[in-house]
Amino acid sequence: MSTIQNFDQLINSLHKRQIHKKVAVVCPHDPHTEYVITRSLREGIAEFLLFTTTEHLTYVERIKMLFPEQVEIRLATDGDDAARLGVTAVREGEAGVLMKGTLNTDNLLRAVLDKQHGLLPPGKTLSHLTVAQLPGYNKVLFFSDVAVIPRPTLEQYQAILDYDLKICRHLGIEEPRVALIHCTEKTNEKFPHTVSYAALKQQAIEGRYGKTYIDGPMDVKTACDHHSAEVKGISSPVTGQADLLIFPNIEAGNTFYKTVSLFGQADMAGILTGTLAPVVVSSRADSNESKYYSLILACICE
Amino acid sequence: MSTIQNFDQLINSLHKRQIHKKVAVVCPHDPHTEYVITRSLREGIAEFLLFTTTEHLTYVERIKMLFPEQVEIRLATDGDDAARLGVTAVREGEAGVLMKGTLNTDNLLRAVLDKQHGLLPPGKTLSHLTVAQLPGYNKVLFFSDVAVIPRPTLEQYQAILDYDLKICRHLGIEEPRVALIHCTEKTNEKFPHTVSYAALKQQAIEGRYGKTYIDGPMDVKTACDHHSAEVKGISSPVTGQADLLIFPNIEAGNTFYKTVSLFGQADMAGILTGTLAPVVVSSRADSNESKYYSLILACICE
Repeated sequence: MSTIQNFDQLINSLHKRQIHKKVAVVCPHDPHTEYVITRSLREGIAEFLLFTTTEHLTYVERIKMLFPEQVEIRLATDGDDAARLGVTAVREGEAGVLMKGTLNTDNLLRAVLDKQHGLLPPGKTLSHLTVAQLPGYNKVLFFSDVAVIPRPTLEQYQAILDYDLKICRHLGIEEPRVALIHCTEKTNEKFPHTVSYAALKQQAIEGRYGKTYIDGPMDVKTACDHHSAEVKGISSPVTGQADLLIFPNIEAGNTFYKTVSLFGQADMAGILTGTLAPVVVSSRADSNESKYYSLILACICE
Repeated sequence: MSTIQNFDQLINSLHKRQIHKKVAVVCPHDPHTEYVITRSLREGIAEFLLFTTTEHLTYVERIKMLFPEQVEIRLATDGDDAARLGVTAVREGEAGVLMKGTLNTDNLLRAVLDKQHGLLPPGKTLSHLTVAQLPGYNKVLFFSDVAVIPRPTLEQYQAILDYDLKICRHLGIEEPRVALIHCTEKTNEKFPHTVSYAALKQQAIEGRYGKTYIDGPMDVKTACDHHSAEVKGISSPVTGQADLLIFPNIEAGNTFYKTVSLFGQADMAGILTGTLAPVVVSSRADSNESKYYSLILACICE
C-alpha cells in the first residue's frame, strides 16, 4: 500500500480493507455529531451504538428512523452514565471505536481513564494524534500532541512515538520521517525538550523504533519545506518531507493545530491514542468535515 | 491615523511621515541583504552605513557605486568588530536602526547586549516583535515572542506588552486588542503561564497598560476567528479580532511564526524590542520581502 496523500484516499482505503466497525457515540445530541453519523451511514462505513438520555431520545430516534438496521439506541440516566456505558461497550468488544458527542471532554475522559472500568491499560500513556491534509504539502501530515500531554517526559515522548509510528505504518508509510520540533537546531540544556530529543534520536539509531528516520530539533519550516532547510544548510532524510511532527509541548502543538486550521485551510482528523480502541474527541470549533475525518481515522486504526 | 491593514500601507505611512533614517548594516555580504539595501535606496526610504571587512569590500563597493551619496562604507577587522562598530554608530546617534547581514545572530547579539557599549539600557528586557500580513485576516497581526525569551516571567510579559503596545499605538491602533494565547481557556495552576495571564489582565483593568483590551487564555482560532469564538461560547472585545498575540513560550511563538509563513502565505516583519533603537535580525530562511518589511518596520518605529 502506498502513502496516503489526502483524506479521500483514507476513505478509499477503509472501503478497500472492508473495515466496518461499530462506533459507540456518547450523547449524539447536536447537529455536528448527527452529520458525522448520518454521513457515515449513507457511505456505509460504520454502524452505531448511540448512548443517550430520555430528554434527548426524540432527537436520537430521528437518526435511527433513517437507518433502523445500522443504529441501536441505549438509554442512560445522564451524560456521565452514557460515558460509562459507552466505555463499557468498547471494553467488552461490542464497539470498536468510542466517539464523543455533546458531553464535555473532561467528563468523557473520566470514564475513559477510570482505572477499573476504563479504556487505558495499565502502563499505557494517554496521548493524541492529529492528521492534517494541507494544501501545498504533498502528503498528509501527522502530529502530536496538541491536546493531552502538557510537557512530555522522555518516557511520554517514547510512548507517543510508539503509537504514532504504528499508525503511520498501518497507513502505508513504511519508514516514517519524524521531525522533533523546536525553535532551535541545537541540543541545549536551556531547552530540556531538546535533551529528550537527543535521547530519542539515539534510541532510533539503536533500532528502538524500527524502520524510521528521526531528526531534530528543527523548526516547522525546516521539517516541511526543502527550500527552508537548504537555506539553513540542514539536510537529512527528514528535512522538507516530514511525515510526523513531534511538538515539544502542548502550547506549540495546539498553536500548530489551530494555525493550520485557520490560516492554512487544513482539513484535520484527530484521535486519542494509548487506549484499548481509538477515541474521537473532536473540539467544538472543529468543522463537520474534520469530525467526519476523525471518525474515518479512528475506524481505520487497529 | 487609521489601522495598518497591510505592508503597503506601512510603506506609505513611512513616506507620509517623511521618515528617512540612517541604517547601520553589519556585514552586508549576501544577495538578500543587498536586495533590502538597494530596494530601500531605490524607493528613497533610508540611507546606509555599511560595516564590512577588507575581504568583502569589493562586494559592498558595488552597492555604494549605485548610490554614492546615500551609502557610506566603514571597514572593520572582522565580523565581531563590524558588530561593535555598528552598535556604536547607533549608540552615538549616527544611525537610527541596526540591521544584521551575514553575521551569526549570536555574534550580533553579543555586541547589542554588551553592558558597557551595547544597546540595551539597564533594566530593559530584550524581546522580539513580529508583524504578519495574512491573507484572510483583515489587518496586520502583531505577535511576540518568537525568538528571544524562552519562557517569559510575569515581569518579562509586562515588558513585552509595554514595547508591543507602544508600537501598535504608534502605528495607529488606538486600543490594541491583545490575546494571551494558550490551549486552555481556564486559568490553571498546571499551566503557570495562565496564572501570569490572570495577573496581566488584572493590571490591564487597573490601567497599567492604558487604553487596550487584554483577554485570555485563548487559542489562536478563538483570538482570530469570530466563528470559532462563537462556537466556544466566548465573546469579548478581543475574540475574533486580535491585533496582538502574546504566546506563552518561544516554542509556541516560533511554531506560529513558521507555520503562517509556510502554510499561511504570510508576509512578515520582525524587530528586536527593548533596545535603544530597533534592531533587524531576520532569519536566513525569511524571504527577501520579509527582510525588506522588517527594515520598514524598524524605520517607522520610534
